[in-house]
Amino acid sequence: MASSESIMKVIYKYLATAPMGTGAEIAALYAPGARVEDPVGTAAHVGTDAITAFYDSVRGGERTIELLTLRVAADTAAFHFRVTTVIENTTIVVEPIDVMTFDDQSQITTMRAIWSPADVVTSTA
Amino acid sequence: MASSESIMKVIYKYLATAPMGTGAEIAALYAPGARVEDPVGTAAHVGTDAITAFYDSVRGGERTIELLTLRVAADTAAFHFRVTTVIENTTIVVEPIDVMTFDDQSQITTMRAIWSPADVVTSTA
Repeated sequence: MASSESIMKVIYKYLATAPMGTGAEIAALYAPGARVEDPVGTAAHVGTDAITAFYDSVRGGERTIELLTLRVAADTAAFHFRVTTVIENTTIVVEPIDVMTFDDQSQITTMRAIWSPADVVTSTA
Repeated sequence: MASSESIMKVIYKYLATAPMGTGAEIAALYAPGARVEDPVGTAAHVGTDAITAFYDSVRGGERTIELLTLRVAADTAAFHFRVTTVIENTTIVVEPIDVMTFDDQSQITTMRAIWSPADVVTSTA
């Protein structure tokens, strides 16, 4: 099993890459055949190509991410974080809790993002 | 599928019952055959009897719980909360992230608690 330290390293890399990285750069942190559900209840993106396309589809604007809380237990991590996206004069903030599982090589095997449209706060300058 | 509102109601009931309730009172919020893994990586408690016994086994001291963050998506909820347990002059604080899934009757079907011994803070008055 991956160590807590190696799982945390991948999470930090994910949080550093996710804001402005390409779909391919983010998908590289996932195992082949991994499954992404964001948010939970929507259609899952399975495999490197689908995960790459998903992250490319949500790019746009200037995005920053702040980690609020990270917990790791065995092969599973949960983290609460704030995503701030600025598109022209509109700022969109959402603070999901994501849950990820990891394989022995510390690659992400599943990601489930828990948030709803009701959690999104939009403001215009 | 259970509504977000009904899932939140069960979480609030769980947080109100968990600090000082009996194992049976807490287990009543779970579906028959539900599975509890607390923390993730330890042996799962499956079914009403095992879940009742698990919650009875962790009773002790004066316990309070504060909800820090709650997110719901479809049939899944994740929440970050602070558990403070006072046993004589020792105070033990841990702030897990728990992930629960729910059936159509808003009963809890799985609970995975994500925290590690390294997250536990103990102080003595």
